[in-house]
Amino acid sequence: MMLDAQDLDDLAAGAVLLATGGGGDPYVATLCTRAVLAEHGPAQLIAPDDLPDDAFVAAIGGVGAPSVGLELLPSIDEPLRAVEAFEAQVGRQLNALVPFEIGGGNSMVPIMAAAARGIPVIDGDGMGRALPEAQMMTFAIAGIAPTPAIAIDYAGNHLSFASSDVLTYERHLRAVTAAMGGMALTVEQPMSGAQLKAAVVPGTISFARQLGRLLRTRRGPAEALLAPLAAVFADSLYGSFHHLFTGKVVDRSSTVVGGFDVGQTKLAALGAAEDILTLDIRNEYLIARRGAQLLASVPDLISVLDYETGTPINAERLRYGQRVCVIGIGAPGIYRSAAALAVTAPRCFGFDLDYVPIETLNAGSP
Amino acid sequence: MMLDAQDLDDLAAGAVLLATGGGGDPYVATLCTRAVLAEHGPAQLIAPDDLPDDAFVAAIGGVGAPSVGLELLPSIDEPLRAVEAFEAQVGRQLNALVPFEIGGGNSMVPIMAAAARGIPVIDGDGMGRALPEAQMMTFAIAGIAPTPAIAIDYAGNHLSFASSDVLTYERHLRAVTAAMGGMALTVEQPMSGAQLKAAVVPGTISFARQLGRLLRTRRGPAEALLAPLAAVFADSLYGSFHHLFTGKVVDRSSTVVGGFDVGQTKLAALGAAEDILTLDIRNEYLIARRGAQLLASVPDLISVLDYETGTPINAERLRYGQRVCVIGIGAPGIYRSAAALAVTAPRCFGFDLDYVPIETLNAGSP
Repeated sequence: MMLDAQDLDDLAAGAVLLATGGGGDPYVATLCTRAVLAEHGPAQLIAPDDLPDDAFVAAIGGVGAPSVGLELLPSIDEPLRAVEAFEAQVGRQLNALVPFEIGGGNSMVPIMAAAARGIPVIDGDGMGRALPEAQMMTFAIAGIAPTPAIAIDYAGNHLSFASSDVLTYERHLRAVTAAMGGMALTVEQPMSGAQLKAAVVPGTISFARQLGRLLRTRRGPAEALLAPLAAVFADSLYGSFHHLFTGKVVDRSSTVVGGFDVGQTKLAALGAAEDILTLDIRNEYLIARRGAQLLASVPDLISVLDYETGTPINAERLRYGQRVCVIGIGAPGIYRSAAALAVTAPRCFGFDLDYVPIETLNAGSP
Repeated sequence: MMLDAQDLDDLAAGAVLLATGGGGDPYVATLCTRAVLAEHGPAQLIAPDDLPDDAFVAAIGGVGAPSVGLELLPSIDEPLRAVEAFEAQVGRQLNALVPFEIGGGNSMVPIMAAAARGIPVIDGDGMGRALPEAQMMTFAIAGIAPTPAIAIDYAGNHLSFASSDVLTYERHLRAVTAAMGGMALTVEQPMSGAQLKAAVVPGTISFARQLGRLLRTRRGPAEALLAPLAAVFADSLYGSFHHLFTGKVVDRSSTVVGGFDVGQTKLAALGAAEDILTLDIRNEYLIARRGAQLLASVPDLISVLDYETGTPINAERLRYGQRVCVIGIGAPGIYRSAAALAVTAPRCFGFDLDYVPIETLNAGSP
């Protein structure tokens, strides 16, 4: 299957929904990708199963604070440069690339790199959503070493990593990303086709495109989109779909801390100012609480749709007074394993909360 | 010339004097080097002029906050591992190593690496003293690119750097060093023999050993050492020798900031508590002021000798109540150039002071 310029907007919109507030703004990244495809032709998208077991593949994406990415814009040649630097580092050519996460800007980066390099993109990703740290990726959870890896900045400076374990890699990468101005591009998690197939969240690029097409063709009030969205998710590897809240942004804080956007947003129900939903954010929407009641938490997906248009909204784009619809979706099954919860449950982000599946928290709700 | 175990203590003591408070504590590093020489035999020391023009050489040393190095101790195999990782990175074997600075611990690191690797150490270094940042090295001042370079931590994790310029390299390296726990070993500034000869501060290892031998054979009250030390410096590439102050430590602050030891020490003259010398420190002693009067500043050398024994004392070893003798020495001529002062004058460290040569500041003093 080929991804052409027309697919990009749908893919980006669907990817923002799946990215749960993170993954980077897709606007400039989509423009860049359009330019790359105009020059190099469409990118080939292949199912994980179509990748030979002995193929050599790596994950690619942007790391850092998404709010920085609104000013430190992505560029056309950076993804290809990152791949070339990685290949020079490991002394081997890549046969395919996989998005390390499905996210607005981060769904475009692999397409740009793959089209420019003339290799396919895997239809799938390493998170099935977006998450802020390297150890939270399915490849790392499956025990695949994250390095050799490379990080490159806007000016072409790059560093390569050889780390004993993924937590060390994450610590070093985060320091480098901050020193690079808060945003870097990485190529990491080199693996074989066989390793990829066992660990990837499959089909997420096509699924994001399908979601985006629905959001475009049914563009309009978010609450009218809930039933069709629920139907699409029902036929996916994600869990149950829930409408968590409808309200407007009444408070918002965000700070760049150690290379992350860290903050909190409060929403008041429309016509009921004392009914407050709080969203805790670390790049992504992590925790949704209505008053003191937990409605959803990482690794389940929390996403925010514009009330009037149904367009998914990244955390760095939330503004005071915006009216929105908050939805929650069960994480792909792979994130319900003990190994995955050990690195993605609320306590991993410093919250004094046990993980409770979204379908348990919302039993009986639509 | 071969450096054997007996040379090490003299070299270390002299190197601490030249390192002006920085360069790392030599105690454990000297023990490690003794063990390496016992296993591999003595290290060969060669004059820069004996290196072929087309030889491939790089600078090596420890980076970080010296106070961290008192707890995160150097190890026997780390220098060799760093060299091997560097050689694997660049795909070429080194013909020799040069200390990036002459400093207590940092005068031992190149000897350990060279003896274990079976290649010579250059008699010279990239600073003629110790200084805290990469752009302050004579190799960088001469325009030699600092990368490819490698940083390795105590656990063998390593990163390699490809930076557009030395300030970018320093920024990335400092972030990595902090993420590595505050101390890392680097191999950097790859260059040819011809480039080295044009930029190195020559002869500093033999000179440090000569100083150390004097300190050992004339061990005793520091003030009795001043005349013999002045005589040795008079016959060197360093500038004039000055006795700046004798007193005891009455105040001391030190904080690890961004991978550096940053602080200030105050000395009161013996028997004259109101006569205060202030030393400003960023790893090294940078500025010496008696009351409001500037006595010496970077890049000229400021060093501290124990009052009773004449032993040079690193900044991280200064303690309340210690009685000391403070000396100052003109920097090697290469640091009096406009290009060198542009990156090493007091303003480069945030001090609102112009550089005035130590011989001008102390005209008429002994």
